[in-house]
Amino acid sequence: MRWPHIEPHLITRSLVPENQESPIHFFSLAAVTPEGFFYIRNHFSYPMLSEESFAVTIDGEVRNSLTFHYRDLLSMPSKEIAVTLECSGNKRARFKLKVYGIQWEEGAISQGVWKGVPLRDLLNYAGLKPTAREVVFAGRDCGTRTDMAGTYPYARSLPLDKALHPDTLVAYELNGQPIPYKHGYPLRLIVPQWYGMASVKWLRSITVLDARFTGPFQVVDYVYEPGTDSDDGKSPVTLVHVNSTIQFPMDRSLLDTGTIQICGIAWTGTGFITDVELSLNGGESWVSADVHRLPNQPYAWILWTYRWDVSQQGEYAILCRARDSYGNIQPAAASWNKKGYGYNAISSINVKVE
Amino acid sequence: MRWPHIEPHLITRSLVPENQESPIHFFSLAAVTPEGFFYIRNHFSYPMLSEESFAVTIDGEVRNSLTFHYRDLLSMPSKEIAVTLECSGNKRARFKLKVYGIQWEEGAISQGVWKGVPLRDLLNYAGLKPTAREVVFAGRDCGTRTDMAGTYPYARSLPLDKALHPDTLVAYELNGQPIPYKHGYPLRLIVPQWYGMASVKWLRSITVLDARFTGPFQVVDYVYEPGTDSDDGKSPVTLVHVNSTIQFPMDRSLLDTGTIQICGIAWTGTGFITDVELSLNGGESWVSADVHRLPNQPYAWILWTYRWDVSQQGEYAILCRARDSYGNIQPAAASWNKKGYGYNAISSINVKVE
Repeated sequence: MRWPHIEPHLITRSLVPENQESPIHFFSLAAVTPEGFFYIRNHFSYPMLSEESFAVTIDGEVRNSLTFHYRDLLSMPSKEIAVTLECSGNKRARFKLKVYGIQWEEGAISQGVWKGVPLRDLLNYAGLKPTAREVVFAGRDCGTRTDMAGTYPYARSLPLDKALHPDTLVAYELNGQPIPYKHGYPLRLIVPQWYGMASVKWLRSITVLDARFTGPFQVVDYVYEPGTDSDDGKSPVTLVHVNSTIQFPMDRSLLDTGTIQICGIAWTGTGFITDVELSLNGGESWVSADVHRLPNQPYAWILWTYRWDVSQQGEYAILCRARDSYGNIQPAAASWNKKGYGYNAISSINVKVE
Repeated sequence: MRWPHIEPHLITRSLVPENQESPIHFFSLAAVTPEGFFYIRNHFSYPMLSEESFAVTIDGEVRNSLTFHYRDLLSMPSKEIAVTLECSGNKRARFKLKVYGIQWEEGAISQGVWKGVPLRDLLNYAGLKPTAREVVFAGRDCGTRTDMAGTYPYARSLPLDKALHPDTLVAYELNGQPIPYKHGYPLRLIVPQWYGMASVKWLRSITVLDARFTGPFQVVDYVYEPGTDSDDGKSPVTLVHVNSTIQFPMDRSLLDTGTIQICGIAWTGTGFITDVELSLNGGESWVSADVHRLPNQPYAWILWTYRWDVSQQGEYAILCRARDSYGNIQPAAASWNKKGYGYNAISSINVKVE
């Protein structure tokens, strides 16, 4: 007989545009997320590609407006770095006071090794004028919004220091292959440490501004709005919050007594993860998990494991909190904000040992 | 360029054993759920098949113990009926007081046209003794449990009246093809109106008992236990509760003003769906949805639609409740029970019209 094939799948959140999350609990979380399990997050339908899609322009507050062709970029000095990409809406479904938007669970996060040219090198060729203040990246994807009239490209800006950081790349490869079409082929901006909205896919143009960029994906979306009724305290979504996910066991699962290998990932946009602690009694006491790092890859998630010998039947609340080198630690409750970004409360599951 | 293919997938809940739910919000809910979207619910690993798997035995309180071969069954008088199969744990994740077990959302339900021989005909060949009281169905799948020692086959019983109902089938085809392996090939019991646990896959044996069957999937699992601390009020899971699901729009989605086609399904195990009502204002007032029935298929879900013309921006709580010909109606809150079976509270989503 043909033995049935069992495999996990991306978890569909919307089809138009396509938004699917990674089945984060159901495959080996190594350095590289397999292409078929890499989360997909789109604002619009996929763009059509043509000859001219194989180039990116630089203009605005630069001495020389330039066009870099795909083949030009392939021959320039490059870098290859492992980067965790996390949608800022990851875990949005977990906010107790529910918010509108795609109800991502824990899988709007994936990791890959990206190869490309430092953006800084391209900006240096063009020559920034002293008036340069922000750099705007437009993708080839565009469309309409429900909250305002008109057609918009997907466009985001970075402050100069992040644009000039040597690890901000115009990437052309993911895991040793051309970037898959759904993930930005042929060219994608990769911004380590920032939430995924900054890593613009199908990169079309780079425009240096002498002012703040005010496109809707900069000032309407991807803004923390902590007030339910007022505009007070708004701030932009930028760096990834320190965070972790328990991969195994699953929430609400039934387990046998014996040895249970609890495992998961942890990541941050500020520095690096220093330690991961678990509580097996709902927060009364904490123990350290073993942390496994990818050498020389500061932007990669870390894997953590803990060997739990459990002989006592009963219900257990298991918590996990990560801490980073900036002293950030996952909070008991995430900061609520109207559009549900940056959820990073202490991870928590309940299991029953029978 | 090759246009990217966009498709929904089964939603993985566990891989060992395989449990995956239907992406119910993301394909056309017609009479037949495509095989790739049919929910998968297993208690154990898949059974190995051999020559002897192509037969089912009948014994116990019968005049003649018999073995029916697959090929015998194919040549006997048959019936073909559309049946909604719903796992009794469907929507378990919705219980506010959380319970252990697989956290099914709304997709542990699918529908197909099953062809097979009425079980009654087979029991008549064997000849029930007057002592016959229950009929036990064992599948070829077996394994261990977390809550008790030993190896168990998956086995379930039916009371005599349901076993003798002319629409309870020993099925060999789904949607005009041999039953897919994952769904019970070569032979599966199909019990219309009962939750899916009764429709035993990989049917191996039929045993007529003179007593109540007390296998663990009969008296430990698939029992409503309404008390948090006591055994009071326990009752077996049998008939499907009247229920509905809103397929579109999605919960917490952002919509434009204009005309929105709200749609979904409704189903019951007691009689048939008589009407489906929607509330567009959180339950203050109700309107009737249009109901579309599959002719002469009393065990099939109905499709319902409602054309909502919405010009006023704002947040809306949309509720849906179905009623059946036995007078059952979806309750405001589902009856809580320790293992989380039979959830059928009024369906409810929140949307924001911008």
